[in-house]
Amino acid sequence: MSAAPLRIGLAGLGTVGIGVVKIVQDHADLIARRTGRSVVITAVSARDRAKNRDADLSAYAWESDPIALARRDDVDVFIEVMGGHDGPAKRATETAIAAGKDVVSANKALLAHHGQALALAAESAGRVIRFEAAVAGGIPVIKALTEGLAGNQIKRVMGVMNGSCNYILTRMQNEGLTYAEVFDAAQQLGYLEADPNLDVGGIDAGHKLALLASIAFGTKVSFDAVELEGIGKVSIDDIRLAADMGYRIKLLGVAQMTGRGLEQRMTPCLVPADSPLGQLQGGTNMVVLEGDSVGQIVLRGPGAGTGPTASAVMADVLDIARGTRLSTFGQPASTLADPVAAISTTPASYYMRMTLLDKPGALAKIATCLGEAGVSIDQMRQYGHEGTLAPVLIVTHKATRADIDHAMGRFDATGVMAEAPVAIRIEEV
Amino acid sequence: MSAAPLRIGLAGLGTVGIGVVKIVQDHADLIARRTGRSVVITAVSARDRAKNRDADLSAYAWESDPIALARRDDVDVFIEVMGGHDGPAKRATETAIAAGKDVVSANKALLAHHGQALALAAESAGRVIRFEAAVAGGIPVIKALTEGLAGNQIKRVMGVMNGSCNYILTRMQNEGLTYAEVFDAAQQLGYLEADPNLDVGGIDAGHKLALLASIAFGTKVSFDAVELEGIGKVSIDDIRLAADMGYRIKLLGVAQMTGRGLEQRMTPCLVPADSPLGQLQGGTNMVVLEGDSVGQIVLRGPGAGTGPTASAVMADVLDIARGTRLSTFGQPASTLADPVAAISTTPASYYMRMTLLDKPGALAKIATCLGEAGVSIDQMRQYGHEGTLAPVLIVTHKATRADIDHAMGRFDATGVMAEAPVAIRIEEV
Repeated sequence: MSAAPLRIGLAGLGTVGIGVVKIVQDHADLIARRTGRSVVITAVSARDRAKNRDADLSAYAWESDPIALARRDDVDVFIEVMGGHDGPAKRATETAIAAGKDVVSANKALLAHHGQALALAAESAGRVIRFEAAVAGGIPVIKALTEGLAGNQIKRVMGVMNGSCNYILTRMQNEGLTYAEVFDAAQQLGYLEADPNLDVGGIDAGHKLALLASIAFGTKVSFDAVELEGIGKVSIDDIRLAADMGYRIKLLGVAQMTGRGLEQRMTPCLVPADSPLGQLQGGTNMVVLEGDSVGQIVLRGPGAGTGPTASAVMADVLDIARGTRLSTFGQPASTLADPVAAISTTPASYYMRMTLLDKPGALAKIATCLGEAGVSIDQMRQYGHEGTLAPVLIVTHKATRADIDHAMGRFDATGVMAEAPVAIRIEEV
Repeated sequence: MSAAPLRIGLAGLGTVGIGVVKIVQDHADLIARRTGRSVVITAVSARDRAKNRDADLSAYAWESDPIALARRDDVDVFIEVMGGHDGPAKRATETAIAAGKDVVSANKALLAHHGQALALAAESAGRVIRFEAAVAGGIPVIKALTEGLAGNQIKRVMGVMNGSCNYILTRMQNEGLTYAEVFDAAQQLGYLEADPNLDVGGIDAGHKLALLASIAFGTKVSFDAVELEGIGKVSIDDIRLAADMGYRIKLLGVAQMTGRGLEQRMTPCLVPADSPLGQLQGGTNMVVLEGDSVGQIVLRGPGAGTGPTASAVMADVLDIARGTRLSTFGQPASTLADPVAAISTTPASYYMRMTLLDKPGALAKIATCLGEAGVSIDQMRQYGHEGTLAPVLIVTHKATRADIDHAMGRFDATGVMAEAPVAIRIEEV
């Protein structure tokens, strides 16, 4: 083994950082066999040096400032597992690139907001930024998309990429609990970010989708163009009734290039209960990649946690140790196109739930609204009821969201609608 | 774009070869964007030049001999999609390496038999051999294992990797047909190799498993040590009764490193019906990778076909175009260990089906045999019957195959066994 050791500077000693330390320490021989060189940590950085971290860090230089770490001469690769999309993580990453380091990041927020600028800086400095750990935890999906499917024009990328949301929806489904009940339990278990809206608002998953879309379609990351809707309005009624029709409700990310531009949605969707996405339980993630040659590839695995995330970080480190040099988003950042954002132009079937006043002709009035908006009905169920309210479920044939919204806009004037209707997209998987 | 074009010599113009031609022709721009250089075919080779191939090959030099193709000065990468584990494919691959070409191969049989020698030759010549297309078609599983999980000690690799076998087993299950009936249908549909034993005997899938095991465990490919059992003896009775107990029967490959050595099995197994493997229908493939940090990753996709296989070939070509240089089996071939083959030492639950003569104490005698062999019973079902034969199903607690065989060896002497008993491993997934 003649190559010089690859020297890591590790910024962030939370659970993921400590997971990285353990892999480097426990698998030194295995890593050297696989890369032809040794991979060592030379320096680390975190806020509180005194904290007990269940790992022996005594051999590593300590920097209290990640920016100082990023500048060290004895660092070849700067690993950023601090988090936060502005502030120290951003400045330290910029510093590392300017100082000629390669960067491995688990920071989806940073990359979703500043990925283009960081990639341009890295590529003009001849350095790489890799971020396998930022999307879908331990699943090697960035690699599968950027490299494994590189010969394909990508048609669509889909995924359940926030384990906390899937955990909440799965428990609601399995135990018949309300959103509020499971949300509270998840928060007590520490499953949610300090700002839970990052999870349940779909923001975290939206970051991941925006990163995948950039690679898939050769466009600049455009998180702001992701149509975001969290799971806070998903009711136990909808989960039950969707199940009754053979569906599951998931917070599903979908990115696809259409004739009108790039669609990026991170919204609750119905998927068939017997599909791989429909069967996904708990915190597990799943990403579906569709290419013109390969067809459909489904990847499933742990979306978070110390080991899985550290595994993804180390995959990037080992690539660098092996000499693999790739553009951040699969092609030079300077060649990425400005995406035209397109909202909801791809037709789909929709699940609609409404509560009608029990008046003669009520259903006919609703059906007329739908027909006038060009929406045709595939299935309809009216449930038995007490009193004067009649719950009605409709599955439409394919329609655009605009047509659905148009129809719903007409519902009010019918005078038969007891509550605001619900419409949820059924994604074809 | 300053880099010189990457020049392909394509040996084999069957469906996969033509699939490669189409990707190179249709996606020239996309490939150049992603790799920073153009990828061109300069020369092709096949047996019959006159054959109509539904692709414009007029711009390419023609070689009737793949060995002459492998030697051409205007070829950088030799793609071998001819097939056959000896003869021209082997000689042409050897020639390409000796002539300083990188090699991309879809030939699982060649690599399973000669991978070590070819890898040694390539690595001492400074060339790479890549073979994503040889395992699980379009699923980027070689990449996921070699690179995506490179920081993990791999604990187990499992997979359904022969679509024809899964097609047969799925149709038996869904339509209640016998093996012979579906085998004939599959043969008429052209789903089976010219020698169908390559499929139904588990040989093709065994080749794939041996390649994955080499990468996973850092050992020389040892196909001869794969415990092989095809699906020819899987009866519709077992499929029905296993389903009744909540299982599916799959031709499942399992490779794991144990204290006693490397276990490699490609045999019919029971898996839970509601697991991802149990839910796999038809010709789709699935590979499960388990690492010490990452946990379980499941990859699902098309295991064969023009587009998927060509997609995998092109992933390797694009890696080479991007400058990625990896050892054939994830570490230098000279460092791969000689595996110690271990057979069936990992305990599992077993499904046992037996037909007993309806004599008093028959079941007790069987239970005694099992107990004396150290096998304990988890579940037992005796089915209603007419006449003097009583079908009995047993699911054991975990036992080794040796213990199960030991117990079955005692059954004969009981005088209550009407037919030879069946025992099938239940793999924990």
